[in-house]
Amino acid sequence: MSKEKPSLPKGTRDFSPEVVGKRHYIFDIIKKTFQKFGFQPLETPTMENLSVLTGKYGDEGDQLIFKVLNSGDYLAKTTPADYEQGSKHLLRKISEKALRYDLTVPFARFVVMNRNEITFPFKRYQIQPVWRADRPQRGRYREFYQCDADVVGTKSLLCEAEIVLMIDEVLTNLGIIDFTIKINNRKVLTGIAEAIGNKGRESEICVAVDKLDKIGRKEVLNELSAKGFEEDNLKSLDLILFDFETDKDLPNDLSLSSNLHSFSNHFSNSIDGLQGINELKEVITYIEKLNKSALSRLTFDPTLARGLSYYTGCIFEVKVNNVNMGSISGGGRYDNLTGMFGLPDVSGVGISFGVDRIYDVMEELNLFPESAQISTQVLIINFDASSEKHALPILQQLRNVNIATELYPDQVKLAKQMTYADQKKIPYVLLIGSEEIASGQLKLKNMRTGEQESLRLEDIMERLTR
Amino acid sequence: MSKEKPSLPKGTRDFSPEVVGKRHYIFDIIKKTFQKFGFQPLETPTMENLSVLTGKYGDEGDQLIFKVLNSGDYLAKTTPADYEQGSKHLLRKISEKALRYDLTVPFARFVVMNRNEITFPFKRYQIQPVWRADRPQRGRYREFYQCDADVVGTKSLLCEAEIVLMIDEVLTNLGIIDFTIKINNRKVLTGIAEAIGNKGRESEICVAVDKLDKIGRKEVLNELSAKGFEEDNLKSLDLILFDFETDKDLPNDLSLSSNLHSFSNHFSNSIDGLQGINELKEVITYIEKLNKSALSRLTFDPTLARGLSYYTGCIFEVKVNNVNMGSISGGGRYDNLTGMFGLPDVSGVGISFGVDRIYDVMEELNLFPESAQISTQVLIINFDASSEKHALPILQQLRNVNIATELYPDQVKLAKQMTYADQKKIPYVLLIGSEEIASGQLKLKNMRTGEQESLRLEDIMERLTR
Repeated sequence: MSKEKPSLPKGTRDFSPEVVGKRHYIFDIIKKTFQKFGFQPLETPTMENLSVLTGKYGDEGDQLIFKVLNSGDYLAKTTPADYEQGSKHLLRKISEKALRYDLTVPFARFVVMNRNEITFPFKRYQIQPVWRADRPQRGRYREFYQCDADVVGTKSLLCEAEIVLMIDEVLTNLGIIDFTIKINNRKVLTGIAEAIGNKGRESEICVAVDKLDKIGRKEVLNELSAKGFEEDNLKSLDLILFDFETDKDLPNDLSLSSNLHSFSNHFSNSIDGLQGINELKEVITYIEKLNKSALSRLTFDPTLARGLSYYTGCIFEVKVNNVNMGSISGGGRYDNLTGMFGLPDVSGVGISFGVDRIYDVMEELNLFPESAQISTQVLIINFDASSEKHALPILQQLRNVNIATELYPDQVKLAKQMTYADQKKIPYVLLIGSEEIASGQLKLKNMRTGEQESLRLEDIMERLTR
Repeated sequence: MSKEKPSLPKGTRDFSPEVVGKRHYIFDIIKKTFQKFGFQPLETPTMENLSVLTGKYGDEGDQLIFKVLNSGDYLAKTTPADYEQGSKHLLRKISEKALRYDLTVPFARFVVMNRNEITFPFKRYQIQPVWRADRPQRGRYREFYQCDADVVGTKSLLCEAEIVLMIDEVLTNLGIIDFTIKINNRKVLTGIAEAIGNKGRESEICVAVDKLDKIGRKEVLNELSAKGFEEDNLKSLDLILFDFETDKDLPNDLSLSSNLHSFSNHFSNSIDGLQGINELKEVITYIEKLNKSALSRLTFDPTLARGLSYYTGCIFEVKVNNVNMGSISGGGRYDNLTGMFGLPDVSGVGISFGVDRIYDVMEELNLFPESAQISTQVLIINFDASSEKHALPILQQLRNVNIATELYPDQVKLAKQMTYADQKKIPYVLLIGSEEIASGQLKLKNMRTGEQESLRLEDIMERLTR
């Protein structure tokens, strides 16, 4: 057995009890909202066949997939000839599986494999880790959780409206109140390409504009220029995208409609552009009838592009205001996700929450409630053999009424036992010494206030289950 | 993009919404029990450094570890010379990480890495998947969940008693009532080796006896004979282990003590053996004072060996009676688990639940309650534009009082919408046609009974939140 100092792989983390408690507090709120909107849980395996994952995330993504070696001594079965044919050939012989890179492609695979058993529209949520061999850096990990909800098998824009409402409910329930949900539509970007005289080149525009936050307006235009977009067209693009003034004097729901209305003026010659605007208007109409207040957090942002190539309709992104953090949620509509596995024409729309970023935001804003801590409620002090003997049935009775209770397992110094309660953030300590055994009145110490009271067990049980 | 028919890696599974609901029903009951006994959640990364995992599970285990290729084109960086040095050498150059094989070794690693921050005794539970490149077969998967609880940093036998109580509570709360918790102590096996004249050879006895269920009594003895155990000694072993008569006429708690008492007669010359028996007696004394009824499910089984080499004290195993299934839970005390990472003398004891087997048992015994199903409570039928418009605020009001509700997103035939409710097991359907819009009385259909009632929205809300 090796006795070297153990360590963690780069970009991975242990989650201590305190952190697990907080993370599951977030998961639970997300889950409850998804369920309230009719989404049901799905779980897919950690490993997928390489053929399922490869070619779905672009060349850059493919490089970041963690590949798993075939089991058994497959390397021994390779021949020098295999080796001479190069590493790609060799790789195919020794690795057929990989860790999932996101939850969307496994979801599409699941839908295609189970198309005959699934009732459409199929609303699923999925909360599982994914793995990417990215260079680890602050806030970017090689293993991280995604929380996705998707509905496939309907084109109804009610689904887009419900996604906005789910985002609004999740963040509000987490206590995050100052945030912006940006919305756009890929067809608006198609319309813009047409409007500036570059019909059909919206993907290139998307890829470049997606980098706006990172590289800035000027570099976006430079990148497009390098790709052969003409100066005049880029001037138009600059005007359309970046001189877009929101009507700040109007209440947000009116300004949203008025913004969309004025933006549609660019699309006198673009059917796609107009349709994009009309879809956005319909989404807003749904939201108005469901929960108008959510509109105050919604903004039309024509520079929202989202890099992923499979989006075809509305796209979303969420930022917390006044916090230095990238988007904490994003998603959109795709018309042909399952097409990659041979099942065309299944339109869907989905949203994904980034739990690591939400966690960091909540820490920064100090939003975790005490109840996010999973811990024991009462520690019974173990003074000596007689005290322990007396404590055992009390321990059992407290647990019988679902009070999480521990008896300190060893008869060690009181100070050590109190430190244990303190560090584990146990709110109550129960002391049963010879005096308490004689009187039947137990001493309950509130660890936060330091207050001590002598109480009968029944009263303690009543108080702690209230 | 590949358009071949997608498939799942061998030995892995998708969990559909129905199955996820049932699995989480099991997880939740296990979690609640662990928490009630003062255990806190820990999560460790999916990938561990190979140096952490290798050499911990025996040669056979090492073969079953799934290794992950280093990211980047590491194969391209290898040279023909690397290749000539053989596959083991090459493997070291291309793989440094692997998927965790169990939760125990990562736990030991966590304890050692965080020894200065942890408050001992440290009680943690961990519910995460593990991966083994075993040959897949019925009931054996390459990805499966373990649910472990361990306490390290105390030798108190109260912990062993609490493990028995946790097993008892988890299974009882799951509705599994007819089960047996087998208990033994490694020191009893040490004593037996001494008693038959093979002092110090208890590991070999453990390894052989561990196969009792699979190969039977005769083959166990044959295996030991092949290992050089003498005929006379094996005769003694046979008598001690297999002619052990339980006192069936006594109530179980008395028979337990009387069994232990009579078994101790073999150990007149073995201090270890006697200590094993005394530890078992002390565990039973604790249980008697905590929850005597659990003793009726507890049995002393001197043939219980458990293969893992790190156990040193009490060992446990749980079987469901009258169901054809291996053990659904097992564990034991280890005195030096963290020694493998250079931190000696941290005694601990743990238990692990096998969720896949528990799931199969519960399906066989039909024990899942309806509440294990995660689904929508009300589906609102979408007749036409006017009905949809009227439905939107109703949808919102139902959700506002936490009733999981969906409005069917498309205006399709009623039959199709009813099928959707039916297949998704939605218990109530709400019909809002022109008549209902006019009267304000909505039609609520109970999908199980087929009953229909006309009710005001307030009454529906009241009824469904009761």
